[in-house]
Amino acid sequence: MSRESELRPMDAEQLREQAHKMVDFIADYYKTIENFPVLSQVEPGYLGKLLPDSAPDHPESLQDILNDVQEKIMPGVTHWQSPNFFAYFPSNGSIAGFLGEMLSAALNIVGFSWITSPAATELEMIALDWLAKAFQLPDHFYSTGKGQGGGVIQGTASEAVLVVLLAARDKMLTRVGKSALSKLVMYASDQTHSSLLKACQIGGLNPELCRLLRTDPSTNYALSPDVLCEAISDDIASGLIPFFLCATVGTTSSTAVDPLSSLGKIAKSNGIWFHVDAAYAGSACVCPEYRHHIDGVEEADSFNMNAHKWFLTNFDCSLLWVQDRNALIESLSTNPEYLKNKASQGNLVTDYKDWQIPLGRRFRSLKLWMVLRLYGLEGLRSHIRSHINLAAHFETLVSQDPRFEVVTPRTFSLVCFRLLPLPNSVDDGNQLNRDLLDSVNSSGHIFITHTVLSGKYILRFAVGTPLTGVRHVDAAWQILQDKASSLLGNS
Amino acid sequence: MSRESELRPMDAEQLREQAHKMVDFIADYYKTIENFPVLSQVEPGYLGKLLPDSAPDHPESLQDILNDVQEKIMPGVTHWQSPNFFAYFPSNGSIAGFLGEMLSAALNIVGFSWITSPAATELEMIALDWLAKAFQLPDHFYSTGKGQGGGVIQGTASEAVLVVLLAARDKMLTRVGKSALSKLVMYASDQTHSSLLKACQIGGLNPELCRLLRTDPSTNYALSPDVLCEAISDDIASGLIPFFLCATVGTTSSTAVDPLSSLGKIAKSNGIWFHVDAAYAGSACVCPEYRHHIDGVEEADSFNMNAHKWFLTNFDCSLLWVQDRNALIESLSTNPEYLKNKASQGNLVTDYKDWQIPLGRRFRSLKLWMVLRLYGLEGLRSHIRSHINLAAHFETLVSQDPRFEVVTPRTFSLVCFRLLPLPNSVDDGNQLNRDLLDSVNSSGHIFITHTVLSGKYILRFAVGTPLTGVRHVDAAWQILQDKASSLLGNS
Repeated sequence: MSRESELRPMDAEQLREQAHKMVDFIADYYKTIENFPVLSQVEPGYLGKLLPDSAPDHPESLQDILNDVQEKIMPGVTHWQSPNFFAYFPSNGSIAGFLGEMLSAALNIVGFSWITSPAATELEMIALDWLAKAFQLPDHFYSTGKGQGGGVIQGTASEAVLVVLLAARDKMLTRVGKSALSKLVMYASDQTHSSLLKACQIGGLNPELCRLLRTDPSTNYALSPDVLCEAISDDIASGLIPFFLCATVGTTSSTAVDPLSSLGKIAKSNGIWFHVDAAYAGSACVCPEYRHHIDGVEEADSFNMNAHKWFLTNFDCSLLWVQDRNALIESLSTNPEYLKNKASQGNLVTDYKDWQIPLGRRFRSLKLWMVLRLYGLEGLRSHIRSHINLAAHFETLVSQDPRFEVVTPRTFSLVCFRLLPLPNSVDDGNQLNRDLLDSVNSSGHIFITHTVLSGKYILRFAVGTPLTGVRHVDAAWQILQDKASSLLGNS
Repeated sequence: MSRESELRPMDAEQLREQAHKMVDFIADYYKTIENFPVLSQVEPGYLGKLLPDSAPDHPESLQDILNDVQEKIMPGVTHWQSPNFFAYFPSNGSIAGFLGEMLSAALNIVGFSWITSPAATELEMIALDWLAKAFQLPDHFYSTGKGQGGGVIQGTASEAVLVVLLAARDKMLTRVGKSALSKLVMYASDQTHSSLLKACQIGGLNPELCRLLRTDPSTNYALSPDVLCEAISDDIASGLIPFFLCATVGTTSSTAVDPLSSLGKIAKSNGIWFHVDAAYAGSACVCPEYRHHIDGVEEADSFNMNAHKWFLTNFDCSLLWVQDRNALIESLSTNPEYLKNKASQGNLVTDYKDWQIPLGRRFRSLKLWMVLRLYGLEGLRSHIRSHINLAAHFETLVSQDPRFEVVTPRTFSLVCFRLLPLPNSVDDGNQLNRDLLDSVNSSGHIFITHTVLSGKYILRFAVGTPLTGVRHVDAAWQILQDKASSLLGNS
């Protein structure tokens, strides 16, 4: 490459030329995405053998890099956007989300305070108010509401639950004194996401007082209000201080839905912060027919859903609403001299740095706003409905094959199922399903994951990528049936 | 828009068409970036007046959205990539970084565990080893080293210091017992970044034992080893437990450089975790002539620099190296059933979820790798040198005008300066410089920020955007001189 044509750090025309190339590379990727094994089949350490052990001293060309992406990186990619990805919960990418990421990366602002890009803060407030309306959230969650509430974009649900846990911790400690930290009690079901225990660990809470209350099939793994009441009474009787309850709408293992109304009333009457984690299933509540799953959210102090899971917004974009923004700010604000400015000092504006763990923040509302406008709420509703219909179709397929069972009733777009052990088998089915999982995943044709419920090893089939259609679900079922036949000895 | 041409959630050809449009919009933005006021001049609440109060039910077109971006969003953007942005520290965007963001957004993987995209984890380890070599970091920071160290990409320096503080906290508590939490003492200079105190607050440390040790002009605001020694001795004598020291290379106010070698030896001999925050100035150490500023880093338990500040890598990309990865993992790991997989269970791989606060993580190493390859280390060195030269040029200009003073010696690309009050003025200069700041920032031509050192209100001129050249620095100085003349009454 001649000196003149060398890539400059920034130059509008060079950016135009190179970015057009990248667009074609990316469009071609999506065109051929089904050709890749959906779960990467590489061995640990594969990439170190393919790349040099030092950064180059001199510039290389984009073409060389794209060749390396194709030949060396792609084999190590697990293709979350493949229509054959049914693992975990989905990570929705979309055209609108991608365009929003492009624009956000191009502006490359760091929106910690209002002044550092007023549009970033204000568009975030507006987009979250739009969604509060679409999800029919209570007035006290609106930034433009009469109260002290508001919405904010966090990176992940882990960060969302961490910031509200810290706010609740500090609010309670202000009341009862700092030395009571080791007496604070947190409640959730044993199906709660692992990020909650991690948040407790980060916040220095007593791990013995993090109560993961037992659930079972009788409630489809939802938290029982009676169990919660009893635990709270016992703790109060022991001189402990209940301070936080996390309910889940759509648990990770099986999309269980905790009963928000009853739980919320218990929390309220005991002065406990009530957080609702709807990271996955919150998206479905944009459809009127699924909205009832968050009935009772009006009791909540905070509500979280991940737009990056099932709402067509590229990762990361986790939406958090709180009833009392001051609780967050009390816990998380900093105000060093070098960040002071008239708008902040005059309390005229929202500075989202005080609502989150990091200082810096990307302009993430752009992609959310673009998703809402390019698809419209109706477009988002049909996206959700199409996946729920596909999951229902898969559930029917499973239930029609007597060798399998559907383990818990399907509520959204996740089906929990398992292959039944042969009657004369010494295995209780756990090894069989472990083997089935390995067998289908190593085929490269589909990727699914597992969980354990009441000691049973269970397969999870989570529908959710934008490209998944009925032919992918049918083909996945065919693979599962074929592998099952092999394992069962063609019985 | 006809039903057939409606934008689908994902479709390779629609993505191609729309993304090419977005590339042109972005390239045109960079072409005209100097036409915008660099600091947004909008009033709080401006955007709510321009946008509807609900999300649309039906899809809108990309062209409508781009028109709104141009007319409604752009006036509220503070243009961090403008060559006339001299505020805070820079947030480097580049063509390579932008291309990397595009690719990462397109793949849209969630790389919490190795299995979820082996290439994401392995490219991160490789890129951080490349940089460990480029910065001449000690062997124990390499993922491929003989020890237990390694590098990881965090979102921000705030998260980097938080995770190492938690690791240090839990390592110490394992030794001395959990009830000692309220006796742990943290040390840093009074110039340390505000994110450190926030990390202490998050981690439940006793705020009275977060010692921000006094600095002054005699050390150019660097932490004195004697002051540290005395504080530690006093605390030990009082039965407290020193556990964490944060030294800074390039403080936010004035780029002060703490003496790593002496401080590290003190930390080591007292069993204290030694963290080095080189968030801003670390980038300069890729040049041999500036590497001496991190001499002594071999004593550190952890080292952090932000590739998104001054290293051409779009936000966010904060690089953290640790000597003992197990300390991080002990503090931050979770292992729920639904994330278990053979590679993780067999301890064959690195799962970065256990090195950070959130569970999910983007494929951020792609952009870093592309920056390293598209510019090469030599390209990055000339980027750094050009900014340091421009800052030196600005420093000369200031020192040639007797109405101004350079306040602390310039070390990197930040110049701290102030306008001197008139001899007969009742103002000590603080109001004068506050007025000068307001006056230049409201012009829209440049954006600079301030700090306070030893009670003096000081202006900060931070060179660092990729587009900034000598003509921008000269023009900025002209504006400062003109506004100063107005304020001083053309004296």
